[in-house]
Amino acid sequence: MAVYTQLSAEVLAELIAHYDVGELISAKGIAEGVSNSNWLVETTGGATGGTRFILTMYERRIDLDDLPFFLDLLDHLAAQGCPVPRTIHDRAGASHRWLGEKAVALIEFLPGVSVDHPTPAQARSVGRVLAEMHAAAQSFAGARTNDLDPAESARVLAECGATALAEIDPALPAVIESAATVAHDWPHDLPRAVIHSDLFPDNVLMLGDKVSALIDFYFACTDAMAYDLAVTHAAWSFSSDGRDFNRAVGDALLEGYQQVRALTEAERAALPLLAQGAAMRFISSRSYDWIHTPADALVTRKDPMAFVRRLDFYRAHGSEVFGL
Amino acid sequence: MAVYTQLSAEVLAELIAHYDVGELISAKGIAEGVSNSNWLVETTGGATGGTRFILTMYERRIDLDDLPFFLDLLDHLAAQGCPVPRTIHDRAGASHRWLGEKAVALIEFLPGVSVDHPTPAQARSVGRVLAEMHAAAQSFAGARTNDLDPAESARVLAECGATALAEIDPALPAVIESAATVAHDWPHDLPRAVIHSDLFPDNVLMLGDKVSALIDFYFACTDAMAYDLAVTHAAWSFSSDGRDFNRAVGDALLEGYQQVRALTEAERAALPLLAQGAAMRFISSRSYDWIHTPADALVTRKDPMAFVRRLDFYRAHGSEVFGL
Repeated sequence: MAVYTQLSAEVLAELIAHYDVGELISAKGIAEGVSNSNWLVETTGGATGGTRFILTMYERRIDLDDLPFFLDLLDHLAAQGCPVPRTIHDRAGASHRWLGEKAVALIEFLPGVSVDHPTPAQARSVGRVLAEMHAAAQSFAGARTNDLDPAESARVLAECGATALAEIDPALPAVIESAATVAHDWPHDLPRAVIHSDLFPDNVLMLGDKVSALIDFYFACTDAMAYDLAVTHAAWSFSSDGRDFNRAVGDALLEGYQQVRALTEAERAALPLLAQGAAMRFISSRSYDWIHTPADALVTRKDPMAFVRRLDFYRAHGSEVFGL
Repeated sequence: MAVYTQLSAEVLAELIAHYDVGELISAKGIAEGVSNSNWLVETTGGATGGTRFILTMYERRIDLDDLPFFLDLLDHLAAQGCPVPRTIHDRAGASHRWLGEKAVALIEFLPGVSVDHPTPAQARSVGRVLAEMHAAAQSFAGARTNDLDPAESARVLAECGATALAEIDPALPAVIESAATVAHDWPHDLPRAVIHSDLFPDNVLMLGDKVSALIDFYFACTDAMAYDLAVTHAAWSFSSDGRDFNRAVGDALLEGYQQVRALTEAERAALPLLAQGAAMRFISSRSYDWIHTPADALVTRKDPMAFVRRLDFYRAHGSEVFGL
């Protein structure tokens, strides 16, 4: 949540001139994204359409070889009618440009706000749009390996080690073995597509009960569609600390999804394990970040225990929650 | 440059409902202001006019007793035709509200971008608008003491102490005595008004060569108008490190100002000293912040030497620069 790079008005205006969007009117650095700098940019408008855009500068984490995959995916999904921001291409047709050594992309601005306490109606809308996105992604030519799969989660947790994990919470070291088990049991033959894989409420913009935009596709990868649904279930159906499960929200999400795309029997049967794998993915990244972020850094460390609680919940109640 | 507080969409929507501005469409935390959190908010529009606003939450530093002064000042200057954002009043007529223990205000959004490398034409426009603001402020009933005057700068630098200042730069301790001299010689009978007193380029929005907005009035106070011009001269006419003086920009600023309001002889004669006082004000606050900010904090410490260089420049060349 920061703007890592300062861009002068002069540099911004020069950049914007490469796009058919008119003259620069306003640019505000916005506090979104953990690995990018973002500006909300306003222009006088041009043939590209629209007068407001998000300018993203890719600061780190993202493998720049993946950038065309992410940006082409946005264009593909938007063209299929999904509420996903289009990439604005420059006059030469490029979807990203360079400012010095950093890649930048100009992306359509879409309205909406992220909710903190979703209602069942909102979760149903998210479920439907997620299924529509999966359907639209079937015809997308690009592919990208999920480099945060359960095997990787298990590896990362083992690398963190029981000692360091115990310093975060005494209950955390036990997750090393759980992660290995989940990775061992993981199904590899479920129907796949390009998935979002990080569809937390802050990556969904809503107007009332309706999804107006899915954003931040920088973890998108090719993997099981039902896994994406499980991630979204873990992200939407709990209080952020993982202590309270909201059954009505979880059910509405599953219903909304299946109104558009019915799960196969194998997918449905796999959901409890997929949800544990989803919890594992965030336990591992949060544990790693916790151990590698100084306690006095101004960055908020996210507690991995919030997802250990989800993991425990899915182990105990997964079959019931997913109607098995 | 941060968003200190997270506000959920639900809380934002509830807040916005107290204003006649329509429904909340979008809200982005923006990286502006050093002591406030700010959001760029979009709504469907209402009787208040406009669909875009800056929501400011006052986090610290500002004495909340001063808030009505700042917000009323914006309204007064805007009503006088100055390019200053209006305060949006809620349905009950209040210019600020409370979210828990923090005050918030909804402020008109004005277009424009802040320039890093102003041209003479831009500086001339800034000079004119500054003089127009001073003229418009004459009829403003509010008043606020300048709590960062030369006496205070001298006190702060003395409190920092030669030892701590020398650790920042060996040349810095000498400023303690200079500050006392400037404070001693300070003129107290120059024409006064409510002044901005912090009109750096990042507090001015421009469209091309034209000023579209003066913003961030949270250092506004009642003091000599010529001092405000001196602050603006120090802020606009140098490279940020203070090493390079841009005579054409400085001259254009002074010309622009005097096209609207001619300086008195006493003001003109005082400018070299006022400019040294302006430099002192930023040397003292930057030194204080430097000493009180850990070196490894993620906040960028601003080098007081950038204004020691300006101080030295004004001492050596002030008479010539101000045409005396």
